[in-house]
Amino acid sequence: MKRQRIAITMGDASGVGPEIIAKLFLREDVDSLADIFVIGDLFPMLSAQRRTSKKLSIKPVEDVKKSGHEKNVIPLLDMKALHMDDYTVGEAGARAGKASFIYLKKAIELALSGKIDAIVTAPINKHALHMAGLSYPGHTEILAKFTGTKNYAMMLLSDRLKVVLATIHTSIKSVPGKLSAAGITKLLRLMDFSLKRDFGIEKPSIAVCALNPHAGENGAFGREEEDIIAPGIKKARAAGVRADGPYPADTIFDRVVNHSSHDAVLAMYHDQGLIPLKLLSFDTGVNVTLGLPIIRTSPDHGTAYDIAGTGAAKDGSLYEALKTAMIMAKNRDK
Amino acid sequence: MKRQRIAITMGDASGVGPEIIAKLFLREDVDSLADIFVIGDLFPMLSAQRRTSKKLSIKPVEDVKKSGHEKNVIPLLDMKALHMDDYTVGEAGARAGKASFIYLKKAIELALSGKIDAIVTAPINKHALHMAGLSYPGHTEILAKFTGTKNYAMMLLSDRLKVVLATIHTSIKSVPGKLSAAGITKLLRLMDFSLKRDFGIEKPSIAVCALNPHAGENGAFGREEEDIIAPGIKKARAAGVRADGPYPADTIFDRVVNHSSHDAVLAMYHDQGLIPLKLLSFDTGVNVTLGLPIIRTSPDHGTAYDIAGTGAAKDGSLYEALKTAMIMAKNRDK
Repeated sequence: MKRQRIAITMGDASGVGPEIIAKLFLREDVDSLADIFVIGDLFPMLSAQRRTSKKLSIKPVEDVKKSGHEKNVIPLLDMKALHMDDYTVGEAGARAGKASFIYLKKAIELALSGKIDAIVTAPINKHALHMAGLSYPGHTEILAKFTGTKNYAMMLLSDRLKVVLATIHTSIKSVPGKLSAAGITKLLRLMDFSLKRDFGIEKPSIAVCALNPHAGENGAFGREEEDIIAPGIKKARAAGVRADGPYPADTIFDRVVNHSSHDAVLAMYHDQGLIPLKLLSFDTGVNVTLGLPIIRTSPDHGTAYDIAGTGAAKDGSLYEALKTAMIMAKNRDK
Repeated sequence: MKRQRIAITMGDASGVGPEIIAKLFLREDVDSLADIFVIGDLFPMLSAQRRTSKKLSIKPVEDVKKSGHEKNVIPLLDMKALHMDDYTVGEAGARAGKASFIYLKKAIELALSGKIDAIVTAPINKHALHMAGLSYPGHTEILAKFTGTKNYAMMLLSDRLKVVLATIHTSIKSVPGKLSAAGITKLLRLMDFSLKRDFGIEKPSIAVCALNPHAGENGAFGREEEDIIAPGIKKARAAGVRADGPYPADTIFDRVVNHSSHDAVLAMYHDQGLIPLKLLSFDTGVNVTLGLPIIRTSPDHGTAYDIAGTGAAKDGSLYEALKTAMIMAKNRDK
């Protein structure tokens, strides 16, 4: 099997990105997995390396095609976007925000040109991006824009559960108005496509959550099941997608997680999908952008400014993101 | 310690109640736990006993004060409310609905007069009650009415999690409009009272869920946290309740369940509380009515007409309901 080459973007220098990357390179098996290098800046990486372990060292990457792999050595493609005084650990800042955008754009460019097999992104911060005049809500939208992707979705996954959200960062009150049958069909088709291409599941099956408790009990409390979700599923099934539901959300996760009833779940809103995922796999959740021409995964946590620099942040989620990226790259290679 | 006396109401004869009760009496330890008897009808119990095991027998209870306990013997207080042809297993019917109400009323009467220490209720069916001209949505409202209780709430619990719901059987769309600061304060005070009295927790702590994802992110998607939930918590705290939050719902359950951060959770809507509970403890969830002068627990499932009579129903949840009732009775006795 061909050895994979994977870039990890450093994310926001003021957040936990640099230190979880340093912790990752302390792991015994990381050098054996793939040729992994970091796209970031020297100052924050040096600072994180020193705080993490004397065993670690940093080595500049001159040619990404030859980044190599040595135990406890962090290969760094230094974007020289930040000086020592350009950022403060634990605080959102325009320069670190801008720099995080530069790392990501470089990674996208390398992935699109085939020089790397996948991107794993350490956390960036929306407020820092805004301070830098970049009005993206997060990674996903930047990735979509610079890869020219119109149809994409976020999947959160762990070894126990794969879940896609029909709505994300929006109030509970606004959720019903944001659901549409066409949107659900589109998501189900994208999930089906990606479960095959990226996860190697030949005939994927998808469970769709209801919006209301007890799936609305035949319209007694809510009609979105009949009016929106069921028609959305029906159209997806007509297109060959093995989607079932809508199921009452309080019982379907037990069936999927404990009885393997389906390969993935489409949840109607943020907490519906993330309560079970984080309960089962708090420190190991992975975020994947479905629908991109390139592969991108990330840990499912943010910059965590409140603990940045303290060494408290764990690299479990980043490690799982790396392994997920490898699985996806292997499946796409087939 | 005084031996406890507990009545199990048979619930709807057409549902799984009789058969899960029969299974319960097959357990090795049940006769040793307490003096337990069933309030129900002979025909459905005989039928369930025959389908379940030859080891079981049924013995009429003449005097509830002397119901006794023998291995694999089901003591039955026969209410003679149903004849053989009065009900069909698997179908809602007026007579079985009426009978289920009669068993419950008898149990309430016995509990109020101190003849029994607790009631465990097998499932009844809302539609069957309606067919009998009884317009109660469920056990809770009947118990509240006949004990004269104004301030009550449903708690769902397992060995991993205790959760109370601020709204229950209502559409997601209607949830925000049903929340109020005063309602949240009232629930928190009731939870505090009951965690002390019924569960013996000296200084209970309660985590309150946010309604919106990320707790609304400072009002960016939803203001119910600032306008309703936080003021409700504040008033409860002023009254001496150790309540914290509102917390983002996707992370608080991990903290409570895996890190014991709080003794119980107040969830804003049905699925928010029941997704984690059923994921962790699908067959062992227990429903408790807080605030009653008497003790009442039940399994957290319904009549399950679709599997009634097949023997597929499990008695795990009923067994846990029995043990929870015993714990509550012991704590109230102190």
